[in-house]
Amino acid sequence: MRAAVMRNRTLVVDDVPDPEPGPGEAIVKTLACGICGSDLHALAHADKMVDIARETETPFNMDPSRDVVMGHEFCVEVLDYGPGTDGPVKAGGRAVSMPLIFRASGIEGVGYSNAVPGGYGERMVLNASLLLEVPNGLATPHAAMTEPMAVGLHAVEKAHIEPADAAMVFGCGPVGLAVIAALKLKGVEPIVAADFSPMRRALAQKMGAHVVVDPRERRLIDAYREAADLRPAAVFECVGVPGVLKDVMRQAPRGAKIVVAGVCMEEDTIRPMLGINKELSLQFVLGYTPIEFMDTLGALADGRIDVSPLVTGTVGVEGVAQAFRDLATPEQHAKIIVEPWRS
Amino acid sequence: MRAAVMRNRTLVVDDVPDPEPGPGEAIVKTLACGICGSDLHALAHADKMVDIARETETPFNMDPSRDVVMGHEFCVEVLDYGPGTDGPVKAGGRAVSMPLIFRASGIEGVGYSNAVPGGYGERMVLNASLLLEVPNGLATPHAAMTEPMAVGLHAVEKAHIEPADAAMVFGCGPVGLAVIAALKLKGVEPIVAADFSPMRRALAQKMGAHVVVDPRERRLIDAYREAADLRPAAVFECVGVPGVLKDVMRQAPRGAKIVVAGVCMEEDTIRPMLGINKELSLQFVLGYTPIEFMDTLGALADGRIDVSPLVTGTVGVEGVAQAFRDLATPEQHAKIIVEPWRS
Repeated sequence: MRAAVMRNRTLVVDDVPDPEPGPGEAIVKTLACGICGSDLHALAHADKMVDIARETETPFNMDPSRDVVMGHEFCVEVLDYGPGTDGPVKAGGRAVSMPLIFRASGIEGVGYSNAVPGGYGERMVLNASLLLEVPNGLATPHAAMTEPMAVGLHAVEKAHIEPADAAMVFGCGPVGLAVIAALKLKGVEPIVAADFSPMRRALAQKMGAHVVVDPRERRLIDAYREAADLRPAAVFECVGVPGVLKDVMRQAPRGAKIVVAGVCMEEDTIRPMLGINKELSLQFVLGYTPIEFMDTLGALADGRIDVSPLVTGTVGVEGVAQAFRDLATPEQHAKIIVEPWRS
Repeated sequence: MRAAVMRNRTLVVDDVPDPEPGPGEAIVKTLACGICGSDLHALAHADKMVDIARETETPFNMDPSRDVVMGHEFCVEVLDYGPGTDGPVKAGGRAVSMPLIFRASGIEGVGYSNAVPGGYGERMVLNASLLLEVPNGLATPHAAMTEPMAVGLHAVEKAHIEPADAAMVFGCGPVGLAVIAALKLKGVEPIVAADFSPMRRALAQKMGAHVVVDPRERRLIDAYREAADLRPAAVFECVGVPGVLKDVMRQAPRGAKIVVAGVCMEEDTIRPMLGINKELSLQFVLGYTPIEFMDTLGALADGRIDVSPLVTGTVGVEGVAQAFRDLATPEQHAKIIVEPWRS
């Protein structure tokens, strides 16, 4: 099958072996797969990601020196099931799934594995039991947004929002926008967000931010004070670049709950006294629970989260490498969807 | 009155003006006052402490270029009350109080103020309404331990311990020992603690640690796994030196709640990916609530916390400067009590 393949730290289009479904597995056709910032990270820093995963005993069995078909934000059509297997979605039906596959040999991360291909290829194998049928009305590219939007819901759940809380969001890239959508879903108000990019600030407002600021013009905390006064703050760090966490801790109000959703691969410097004197908490987050994934699909399907503004481009496998380059420019795109069946 | 005075970054014994109680205040005789690690910090880094307090809008109105009588861990005898004032403790009775005094001009931290003296002097003024009578049986030096032990109780409360949790304690100085006592008070088991000092490890066991390790010989996480298997961990960072937090995050089990109780005045470097991959949380803590302070006094008074092993020395005001030097050596002392009435 055709796929965009990560090979020798670059992306190439090539024919790769078709995956074969084992018992308990489905073979599916990839209808749509979003490009995630983590994939850009992985292309640039695969070795470092593998090292840290090993150090923290995180299942992530990828050898970057061998071919990897990335892509973990997908909506698929079920083609068939493996030997002796049936599943919750009939052949021909559309489904999403958490990007994990449980095998006797261990857990594989779909999109970060040498053993199974991810959604930048025409076909995948998935665990039959993890398939969730896409409710009829939800457009396929929007269903593919279940995974990244679940990341936002998880971050918000981990903040343990209380009724009086308002929210500050540092960074309105894909993670920040997903956080804003989840905050809106939870009824948090006001949501005050910051990003350097005018396009991202506009998207933040479409997703539910009540106030947006350009950090070159105004500090987020000043806008927050004006909008939320002295209300307690749930603060979301969605940038993931060294130095940001220190600034977030400097701006955070006393007692703030800071959720670190930005993925900073580098070492970072903080000033513990800022945390101590203000009794801040930092909650680092990763992924989502199965319930959060399912709830996100439901929120997309019934319109409580509208992701249509976020899908800013669509490419075939030949367009993946260029799309990775385009995504480095925040003014151009939010989410680019890969449709591997396109010629 | 006689007092040990912080003057020009050093400690001198001198006569200072007697404090005068205003309305709502009591004049008290200092019976005993513990020397706190924060006082050692303040003598070395007063300017930095003031700068950070100002930046974080923390009430801490101390000008280090003027005289300061430190000392905020005290047990006192009530001498009299200010104009038109009565209080909950009769003259001649013993009391403790949180080291804060609320005045029309603002809040003063007793022991970190130019306006009121702390417990390294013969007399103090305190808010009448904050006085808590010392239950008869509790020895005066032990009552003076209410404040530092409340710091430990607060740190443990902020961990939101759940029934399955076990505890790891990095560092068995005064803060770590207070944390261990509070963990024992809460019935947490096992408590696994680490310190380089044999004396501190022995004190940790006396205060309630079930397992102690020398980090030169064994990693704390390895001892924790043996004692607590895969139970979720409440982790207490009680060292406060750059580099320790990074190591704590490296050793912390997946999902650990890390309470940062050590006071690190410097910048510090962390690896956010360790936090992300293991979904760690960091809760920075400071001080205690009035309820925690009162509960600690109760626990000391009825023997649920026995602080007698911690009091390792007693000095008069002339001995304070030497006591500060002695406390830099962990083998020699845990808590030194100042008795300013000693000739």
